[in-house]
Amino acid sequence: MSISQENKNKLKSLLGEERVFFKDETQMDQATFLSFGTDRTKVYVPDYEILTFPKNTQEVSEVVKFAFENDIKIVPSGGRTGYAGGAVAKSGEIVISLSKMDQVLDFDPFFGSLTVQAGMITKNLHKEAEERGFYFPVDFAATGSSHIGGNIATNAGGVRVVHYGLIRQWVLGLKVVTGTGEILEFNGEILKNNTGYDLKHLFIGSEGTLGIITECTLKLTKKPADNRILFTAVPDFSSILELFKETHNMPLPILAFEFLTKYCLDKVMDHLHVPDPFSEVSPYYVLMEFEITEESDDEKLFSFLETILEKGYVSDGSLAQNSRQAETFWKYREGISESISIDYTVHKNDISLPLRNMNPFLEDMQALLSSKYPGFEIALFGHIGDGNLHLNIVKPKDLSDAEFFSQCKKVDPSMFELLQKHHGSISAEHGIGLLKKDFLHFSRSSAEIEVMRMIKKALDPKNLLNPGKILP
Amino acid sequence: MSISQENKNKLKSLLGEERVFFKDETQMDQATFLSFGTDRTKVYVPDYEILTFPKNTQEVSEVVKFAFENDIKIVPSGGRTGYAGGAVAKSGEIVISLSKMDQVLDFDPFFGSLTVQAGMITKNLHKEAEERGFYFPVDFAATGSSHIGGNIATNAGGVRVVHYGLIRQWVLGLKVVTGTGEILEFNGEILKNNTGYDLKHLFIGSEGTLGIITECTLKLTKKPADNRILFTAVPDFSSILELFKETHNMPLPILAFEFLTKYCLDKVMDHLHVPDPFSEVSPYYVLMEFEITEESDDEKLFSFLETILEKGYVSDGSLAQNSRQAETFWKYREGISESISIDYTVHKNDISLPLRNMNPFLEDMQALLSSKYPGFEIALFGHIGDGNLHLNIVKPKDLSDAEFFSQCKKVDPSMFELLQKHHGSISAEHGIGLLKKDFLHFSRSSAEIEVMRMIKKALDPKNLLNPGKILP
Repeated sequence: MSISQENKNKLKSLLGEERVFFKDETQMDQATFLSFGTDRTKVYVPDYEILTFPKNTQEVSEVVKFAFENDIKIVPSGGRTGYAGGAVAKSGEIVISLSKMDQVLDFDPFFGSLTVQAGMITKNLHKEAEERGFYFPVDFAATGSSHIGGNIATNAGGVRVVHYGLIRQWVLGLKVVTGTGEILEFNGEILKNNTGYDLKHLFIGSEGTLGIITECTLKLTKKPADNRILFTAVPDFSSILELFKETHNMPLPILAFEFLTKYCLDKVMDHLHVPDPFSEVSPYYVLMEFEITEESDDEKLFSFLETILEKGYVSDGSLAQNSRQAETFWKYREGISESISIDYTVHKNDISLPLRNMNPFLEDMQALLSSKYPGFEIALFGHIGDGNLHLNIVKPKDLSDAEFFSQCKKVDPSMFELLQKHHGSISAEHGIGLLKKDFLHFSRSSAEIEVMRMIKKALDPKNLLNPGKILP
Repeated sequence: MSISQENKNKLKSLLGEERVFFKDETQMDQATFLSFGTDRTKVYVPDYEILTFPKNTQEVSEVVKFAFENDIKIVPSGGRTGYAGGAVAKSGEIVISLSKMDQVLDFDPFFGSLTVQAGMITKNLHKEAEERGFYFPVDFAATGSSHIGGNIATNAGGVRVVHYGLIRQWVLGLKVVTGTGEILEFNGEILKNNTGYDLKHLFIGSEGTLGIITECTLKLTKKPADNRILFTAVPDFSSILELFKETHNMPLPILAFEFLTKYCLDKVMDHLHVPDPFSEVSPYYVLMEFEITEESDDEKLFSFLETILEKGYVSDGSLAQNSRQAETFWKYREGISESISIDYTVHKNDISLPLRNMNPFLEDMQALLSSKYPGFEIALFGHIGDGNLHLNIVKPKDLSDAEFFSQCKKVDPSMFELLQKHHGSISAEHGIGLLKKDFLHFSRSSAEIEVMRMIKKALDPKNLLNPGKILP
């Protein structure tokens, strides 16, 4: 595809010269240019034509209208921290980066809501909320780069979903630009609005395929007064579930319920050179974070620890005595991804299951690997309180990368079949993007996919918005 | 419309004789028969042909397929406690009552989720959850009759939305039958499932126009340990907002934040023969409910009361000393509807606004009434922490009912215009149904309504499902 000089001039007149870049002109170095058309998936090679930086919803609409008139495909570009290829532009598209749209637009100090442009970096949103005496609770490793609009477009979760839910729960209103360039505004900043279909929920998690999210109003909450970390060793898988059940009876709010296997703990110890926090070996570990509001709450934690030790749900447990120790405990969980990715070659999966089906699924999965891929090991960890497992397959030393990934390609469908059998999802948090679209049918029926197609067609009749993502 | 004997036999063979009733046959008395085709709105006269009582999703699907083949319009019928005519059948329809679908289907004790048929009465669902050691938090006056499916179809709220959110937040999975009789199953019982558009949210709040909800999986939570009621007198409207803002800093969870005017308090005192709980007259009253977990939490409440008295947000306040007093306090809020409906003729409106726009809206509204309808008085109360006002216009004694309602018909559009100006919604909780569909455009843009129509068409191509509801 080549862009005519006339069209180049048109775009420049829409946005100004300094906010439009063309692949075949050299205002920006190629690596930087291409980085706006990719994400963290790294298996796709970006290749696209035009990079734009609109400053407001109206400009996004004008760029989309330009693309619509000229039948140019569009990829919305946020913080590009995704793991499913949802932000990849590799077929001559126009990329619409939201990076220059990062302003606070409005704030309601009474209800506690903040309206911002979608390109605001999540960490900055946290700051803006805190400066106003509030707290925005959706938090995860990539918040220093991710955009709030991208978080909404992928229905982001993170480590405290067990308490705060997914980001969907915190979105009051959205402004979006559809595939025709039309601006739709949903709900404003009110909480209750039972006036027909709540269309904003279609856009939350739609990965930019139905519209480009340009502004959002988020509900804020209050910051936890303080928190405590309880790190425990768990003797068997079913005790993890009993332990989680037991937390329902705790008088303190639980903010996180994360688990890891001995295998993961070992890898973190090796990689980060940290000691084993427990004196005896255990197959599983669970890290719990509770909110406390006063010192006497510590007694409740000790009494909880006593109960779960007595009931045998945990064989050992340690309560962080100060914030430094709390941080250290979190490292055993948060260091896993880095430890296994740097020292090993891994194939990642982010799946979810009903809690009670987890063990049967894992048994089936282990049987599958043992019989067909005896050298494969699993690094298993995740937000187990949400039913969310990060299941990473680790490459055996004697296998080449190419051979390993080729075998993983065969494992995936078998695993997805098992997930389907146990009523799980092939993507808990990361989305579908390009990476999993061929497997969508393992999580969604053909009737559902048909409805999704009809909705896509209604909002993006020329199939220009992030085409090829999600729908097979 | 008349139903052929062949079709009658067909339906009887689908469901069995005892679960199909025809208007022109006399198995059931007419009043009972008609009651399944109406709700609490009372302004529409039910008139329909066939009443059916399927027992499971498959049977609902078969009845819908029968209707589809014969082009018969369908009205789903739940607990019929709505206030917008959403369950009215008045044009020869087939009514599908969910009353015989009230079974528990599944329970996950670890995560805490319950799967039930949609016809389960909400109160019974509360019981089923409690028997299993959990709590379902969506609660309101009509839960003794309302169905959980109807609650979902209207995205029900209630008195504790400020803490627990609307029912939307508690729905994990749905099974629905679309307008073609197709069964769609959304999400099962998992929390996280980022695999494309989350279609279940379209059905939540769709008032039966996109599909009939037949089964649902609900997330449960834990019951508040105990609660305390703080009833306060507030000197002016802006102090209500400051007071709400102040609750954000409370270390105790706030479960309810309800307000009423002096006018409402007087009406409850007259009707229920209860004394004035305050020694001095105040224009506004706010009732707050807080969760407490231990006795020392009472100190926090006293200190909060001290703060809000010092800051002048309240002029007087009283903390319920026991559960009987708590109940008494709640009566001043919960008795309003009954008190004004029985002793007066009222025109109800259930609206919502951004908190900070409430006062300007109310000033505009008062100015409108004073200039054009000087005899009209307003009974104002509601879930103000959610931005939700129940604005009831009370008929002046010297006006006939007919004249009053005819004038209200003129007030409504003017009020809706003011709501639009202040970014509010014409229906916070009650939905649109038949009653407000002509005013939908005050809350939704024509572009949004167009998208709604396209979605309706995709899921109900013959426009058979609850036709004429929501969409003008």
